[in-house]
Amino acid sequence: MQEVGCIGAAREMRKTRRSGCPVNLTIELLGDPWSLIVIRDIMFVNRRHYSDLLRLSTEGIASNILANRLRRLVRAGLLSRRSDPTHRQKAIYSLTEASITLVPLFAQICAWGLRHTKPSEEMSVRARLMEEGGEKLWAAFMAELRALHLGAPAPRRSVLAELEAVFQAALRKQEQARR
Amino acid sequence: MQEVGCIGAAREMRKTRRSGCPVNLTIELLGDPWSLIVIRDIMFVNRRHYSDLLRLSTEGIASNILANRLRRLVRAGLLSRRSDPTHRQKAIYSLTEASITLVPLFAQICAWGLRHTKPSEEMSVRARLMEEGGEKLWAAFMAELRALHLGAPAPRRSVLAELEAVFQAALRKQEQARR
Repeated sequence: MQEVGCIGAAREMRKTRRSGCPVNLTIELLGDPWSLIVIRDIMFVNRRHYSDLLRLSTEGIASNILANRLRRLVRAGLLSRRSDPTHRQKAIYSLTEASITLVPLFAQICAWGLRHTKPSEEMSVRARLMEEGGEKLWAAFMAELRALHLGAPAPRRSVLAELEAVFQAALRKQEQARR
Repeated sequence: MQEVGCIGAAREMRKTRRSGCPVNLTIELLGDPWSLIVIRDIMFVNRRHYSDLLRLSTEGIASNILANRLRRLVRAGLLSRRSDPTHRQKAIYSLTEASITLVPLFAQICAWGLRHTKPSEEMSVRARLMEEGGEKLWAAFMAELRALHLGAPAPRRSVLAELEAVFQAALRKQEQARR
């Protein structure tokens, strides 16, 4: 019998759980150099196809690693995979309720990373919005992701549009500084 | 010239940064199966010596992995290392301001792990306290850690004592259920 859900994937990775601690179990699922990067690109930039996740990867993910992580995340219940209705040959990946609720965790990663790593300016503006927006923005973002990925009713506020706007503004500013 | 700080460690791991994104840079530092486990044991159970971190590890960390992670975390500025004044031969590891400010991120890992993995009951009670305590408890915990690890004045509230109390109560309950 195939195991489903998060525990299934943790077992897939290691056969047995290292411990029953929720911190450890989360790390067993997501504590590798690429899983959260793949989820980030689906969540924050809405890349839904394997080819986009590969071709547009800022970090240059390798094709075999991407394929492995997508498969593992689907098996863990953190992504779902279905045929794209407009391109039968292509699979489209969606977030699930479990990965959508990673939003507050991503916000804390943003907040910590802004202070304790040396990120580039244009890659910092979205993280700053995530941090400064606080719980209200995170809830609005999760509502939007539920609409986009799970078919829930679309909320008025689009955090994705806000994130894109601050990013484009930062790119323009960078461009002007170069001239 | 040796590089110091977080960026130094990211470079050590990969020579070059994968990107300037603060989420990516945080994952470059902490996105492996063991770094956050080592920090968790120092932070939440106050294990300060290599021998305790090895011997008492719930997840059974291997000695070479522990030694590597401690070295890497010191180089990244996430831990500091000095001789133990009471045992000259022994090194004592302390959190730094950078790792102490991981408390809200750990709290979100706790919250997510409680909902989306299947943790054991006795290993869940501290995570639940971390989640339910909210920002007020996280701030009190960080103040306590600054006292314990950085020599700041000791605050009145001890979150470590609260965490230990709920854990011991859970162990007693488990013991009674076994009889």
